Amino acid sequence: MLRLRSDLELPQPPPGEARISVLNAGICGTDLELSKGYYPFRGVPGHEFVGRVEAAPGHEAWIGRRVAGEINAVCRRCETCRAGRPRHCEARTVLGILGRDGAFAEHLTLPVENLHSVPEEVGDEAAVFAEPLAAALEIQEQVSIGPSDRVVVVGDGRLGNLVAQTLALTGCDLLVVGRHPAKLDLLASRGIRTGLAGELEARRADVAVECTGAPDGFEAALRAVRPRGTLVLKSTYAGTLAMNVSSVVVDEVTLVGSRCGPLDAALELLASGRIDVAPLVHARYPLEAAVDAFAHAARPAVLKVLVARR
Amino acid sequence: MLRLRSDLELPQPPPGEARISVLNAGICGTDLELSKGYYPFRGVPGHEFVGRVEAAPGHEAWIGRRVAGEINAVCRRCETCRAGRPRHCEARTVLGILGRDGAFAEHLTLPVENLHSVPEEVGDEAAVFAEPLAAALEIQEQVSIGPSDRVVVVGDGRLGNLVAQTLALTGCDLLVVGRHPAKLDLLASRGIRTGLAGELEARRADVAVECTGAPDGFEAALRAVRPRGTLVLKSTYAGTLAMNVSSVVVDEVTLVGSRCGPLDAALELLASGRIDVAPLVHARYPLEAAVDAFAHAARPAVLKVLVARR
Repeated sequence: MLRLRSDLELPQPPPGEARISVLNAGICGTDLELSKGYYPFRGVPGHEFVGRVEAAPGHEAWIGRRVAGEINAVCRRCETCRAGRPRHCEARTVLGILGRDGAFAEHLTLPVENLHSVPEEVGDEAAVFAEPLAAALEIQEQVSIGPSDRVVVVGDGRLGNLVAQTLALTGCDLLVVGRHPAKLDLLASRGIRTGLAGELEARRADVAVECTGAPDGFEAALRAVRPRGTLVLKSTYAGTLAMNVSSVVVDEVTLVGSRCGPLDAALELLASGRIDVAPLVHARYPLEAAVDAFAHAARPAVLKVLVARR
Repeated sequence: MLRLRSDLELPQPPPGEARISVLNAGICGTDLELSKGYYPFRGVPGHEFVGRVEAAPGHEAWIGRRVAGEINAVCRRCETCRAGRPRHCEARTVLGILGRDGAFAEHLTLPVENLHSVPEEVGDEAAVFAEPLAAALEIQEQVSIGPSDRVVVVGDGRLGNLVAQTLALTGCDLLVVGRHPAKLDLLASRGIRTGLAGELEARRADVAVECTGAPDGFEAALRAVRPRGTLVLKSTYAGTLAMNVSSVVVDEVTLVGSRCGPLDAALELLASGRIDVAPLVHARYPLEAAVDAFAHAARPAVLKVLVARR
């Protein structure tokens, strides 16, 4: 009865949306930046999650399903949506980031069209990685990468690990540089070549992917890329970054900003077992201890910290 | 006799190179930056020229021909050359910019393979524009631009004018913004839409081209480009530039550095009469007054200043 009463007190999702009971949520770098006040967002953070649909007026078939969710809720009417770029909708809300409360809560709401059923093979912890894994896959939506390409990933953290694992599947000549032997070992154990950041050869990479969100990571990635090569910017940065534009112009380098990616492809990849996310989970906290979870996630050398309903 | 004696005193061009008597040379923004000491180059500047071949050992057919020249002299042996990117040769010299004396002189030398005969239809003043026009055409070698694209050119100067004229030929929806009514009028008289920099609509351009070399030009261009759009960086900058990387990442903008382009295409375009460079010539100086010519070119609102042999 208590549960029913609790449900009655919940706001009903607006038309087209579903209410989802959050099972598990992950803390990412953007959440840590949000918590430091680098973004104007003042709501509940959290955009990496798996949950179960509790209510979906008009879409009752979804009720009870275990889902992950595309985090951009879009209008389908603005010029950007109509031009086929809905993730950049001018009127969008973004789960836990922009105008929409996120996943570090008992419940969240998202448009039904944003939901993706989680395959049975993907457990509740692995499913939390669908969103960052989709972001890693976005690189390949933007830049063609194949076996003949030399690719450098700068950063061995949460995002760098997933980026490296997805790029390794292309058969490219891959090198991941970082600062943390334990994190690099995770990748090395999967057959990925790793090195320390200082060992990076200059001007040889066809593609460099910056996953540190730090100015020296950006500089290292820019140094590594060859003339006419591509530097993918995968991390957001607090504030501005000093860039040597002349080297970008003279070397005709292409810089590509890269954000959210295809969630369906990420879930398929998790179901296939070709990406290993289990070793990335460094700690688990109950929702009540979310503040401690954030503090833990902010420590150096910590990878994914999960926050779960009990 | 004097002339013959003078020729005898000239150094012979090294194997594979030609000695060219300079007829006309143009001053560009890079030359002005060189003269301010922003580059380590300490030789004779000048990389926009037309001249006549005087000596070309082993390639005597070139003697007497009127030529423009590809400014990058390359090794054909390094990894970058062998990968099909000779303009980025790791061992290159660049006429008047890097390790090779340039065109503000009576003579220059360049590899014979760098020479392009100037069509008769192209006069000695117009031919000087072959090099910067090739640089403008490089944009279309890197980014596909067609009639369905909204394109903004930021900057109405020497380079912005040529960039705008070449882009107009694609049939794209083009707008050039600048600060100088007289320069904008030059473009408007050719049917190109122009505006003042402050009037630029935010987040609407498929492609923005930065041709000012100034931080506020970069900011205006970045603001103008739509999510998932492309910002072409056509100007070099002294020092570093502060960039809001988060906006590049969140909007998934692509930045493309762009330098030298196809000289043959530029000469063809000049010969066709589809590009009008005559109104860009603001002043002519003799070689003896090159210092005055540089001072003139550095004045606000001045377009091309030419330096000619008498």
